[in-house]
Amino acid sequence: MNKLIIVNENGPAENKYDISINSNFEGLKKYFIKDGFEKYAKICVVTDSNVAKLYLNEIEKTLSGLNCKIFTHVFDAGEASKNCNTLNKLYEELIINHFDRHDLLIALGGGVVGDLCGYCAATYLRGIDYIQVPTTLLSQVDSSVGGKTAIDFMQYKNMVGAFYMPKLVYINVNVLKTLDDEQFSCGMGEVIKHGLIRDKEYYDYIVAHKEDIALKRPESLIELIYGSLAIKSQVVQIDPKEKGIRAYLNFGHTVGHAIEKLSDYKLYHGQCVAIGMMAALYLSKRMGYVDEQDIEKAAAIMRFFDLHTSVDKSMMDENAILQATKSDKKMDNNRIRFVILKDIGEAAVTLDVTDEMLLDAIRYIIKA
Amino acid sequence: MNKLIIVNENGPAENKYDISINSNFEGLKKYFIKDGFEKYAKICVVTDSNVAKLYLNEIEKTLSGLNCKIFTHVFDAGEASKNCNTLNKLYEELIINHFDRHDLLIALGGGVVGDLCGYCAATYLRGIDYIQVPTTLLSQVDSSVGGKTAIDFMQYKNMVGAFYMPKLVYINVNVLKTLDDEQFSCGMGEVIKHGLIRDKEYYDYIVAHKEDIALKRPESLIELIYGSLAIKSQVVQIDPKEKGIRAYLNFGHTVGHAIEKLSDYKLYHGQCVAIGMMAALYLSKRMGYVDEQDIEKAAAIMRFFDLHTSVDKSMMDENAILQATKSDKKMDNNRIRFVILKDIGEAAVTLDVTDEMLLDAIRYIIKA
Repeated sequence: MNKLIIVNENGPAENKYDISINSNFEGLKKYFIKDGFEKYAKICVVTDSNVAKLYLNEIEKTLSGLNCKIFTHVFDAGEASKNCNTLNKLYEELIINHFDRHDLLIALGGGVVGDLCGYCAATYLRGIDYIQVPTTLLSQVDSSVGGKTAIDFMQYKNMVGAFYMPKLVYINVNVLKTLDDEQFSCGMGEVIKHGLIRDKEYYDYIVAHKEDIALKRPESLIELIYGSLAIKSQVVQIDPKEKGIRAYLNFGHTVGHAIEKLSDYKLYHGQCVAIGMMAALYLSKRMGYVDEQDIEKAAAIMRFFDLHTSVDKSMMDENAILQATKSDKKMDNNRIRFVILKDIGEAAVTLDVTDEMLLDAIRYIIKA
Repeated sequence: MNKLIIVNENGPAENKYDISINSNFEGLKKYFIKDGFEKYAKICVVTDSNVAKLYLNEIEKTLSGLNCKIFTHVFDAGEASKNCNTLNKLYEELIINHFDRHDLLIALGGGVVGDLCGYCAATYLRGIDYIQVPTTLLSQVDSSVGGKTAIDFMQYKNMVGAFYMPKLVYINVNVLKTLDDEQFSCGMGEVIKHGLIRDKEYYDYIVAHKEDIALKRPESLIELIYGSLAIKSQVVQIDPKEKGIRAYLNFGHTVGHAIEKLSDYKLYHGQCVAIGMMAALYLSKRMGYVDEQDIEKAAAIMRFFDLHTSVDKSMMDENAILQATKSDKKMDNNRIRFVILKDIGEAAVTLDVTDEMLLDAIRYIIKA
């Protein structure tokens, strides 16, 4: 069983690509035999030290026998590597090996690898082709679509980057079996978010199949990822440059980012977004859109997947969260652009969240 | 008198922009009063230490009184600044002053400023708006069109970059009066190239008005730049990603780049391209396309503008030039993609230049 999503099908040809969702790596090879990928003379597989141990050999074996030269570039795993220094070492690797515009990068790994390798591809010689092979649930459902690439700069996340589409995203859901539990939870936060903002039916699918998903049954994972990507790719195709409804994808992020920052990035992004979604659900209810039952159902499915729905009072202060939320970049003339739900499966942007409402929402997610 | 070119008129709206050719800076202000430029809350004028002394005050004065905050960022003049360190300092300046996607950069200067500031605009927060105010003839006629931005990496020129369109290019031809003679010559090399590859009538205009141009009469300069930009913008619109006829703009560059590299960048780019054009003209004649008279006329107009048409034997060896030419990146399956002229005003790409022909062409431009 495998599933396919075609991204940017109606846009310019150079932005169009497949997301192929599978339960193995072998299918990757077929792209290099037909489908125009046989043209590459050199391939550099970029990965991090964790993923290299698990899957680099398998990818190299999959690509062996092709009529092209395979290089590998491994950097230290972790967000701390997502910077200019790591990027420069990758540029050097490519220069030393005479990579030109006809060659290819493959990003094998989670968000850090995908973002950094994608940004390298966007900028090396003003752009060379790249393929994403995401190995975390979050990167499979999130960074596969939209062409966002970036590195961090100083203490600022994703400060420097580009919109640049891959030529292919190849997902093997079986890699999720080696993913640590917390990272799987974070990905589930993203998946649940996609349902909440855009598709009640999909959201109900997750709730109904939560056991199979937790057991990482390939069929359920393929359905789960397919549904999530279908939602995200639809949103991104309607609004590629984040000027309209793509903002819905920031559901839970406004307060979530603030918590993430205040935790000094000790709490994972996905965990913080889950907490942020609870704050946004509280505001949605307060504005008369969703009811208590909706909130409880959302909290239950998040908890099932080990997502937090609140933050410890001992960890951070409500006023600090308020200030950090307000200093976030998603502001519009000093009003917070807040994503709320008009209903389960239907997001909207509001500028009507006052400081007082926001503070109440923050209090709602702080646990003594 | 002023002239206007609209670039990418028929493409996506975000790639469309004006090139406004004037004999003053005042006209820049009018864009910020209407035409949608009044929306910017902050502007950072990026320039180098040479241009800052001459024109930064004037630009600041021109923009004063607008409803936005003006910042300036000055870096050391010279190609040596076109690197990651200078770029990082500029990112920092923007971060410290809370620049976001609604703000604007203005690149005030020659190619180094335009390339670096443009690349910063392409990548800061995945892209913010920028305006080019080019102050050298070369940057006015060359980098104004096509959206090429880049920095150098290690010893490699323009190794890291992006295609990213400015929102406006504003040219004041009177700044050319303070441009040093050699840089003016280099720009003329580019201008003559545009005529040779694409427009005989324009080429003849240059020859007929060479005195007025050399005297830097504003009307002649406006005509000169307008004509050159009309040619380049037409070529780039037909072939934005350099897959077809945009290669014509590399006329003179294959051998020119080799000479530039071998001179250790002591010879200017424009001077080297002029010498490279002579080699390409020699090959065009040898392939039966142009005649001796065409070559002499081209050599005469180049010499009139103090462009070299040959390189000293004492400076570099013919075999070194051959090797450097062959190691240049414009190769196609180990054959050099050479731009020649089928006629004055009509370029073409050939893969038929053998090593022996190339060596003869190199001998042709080496003077004992």
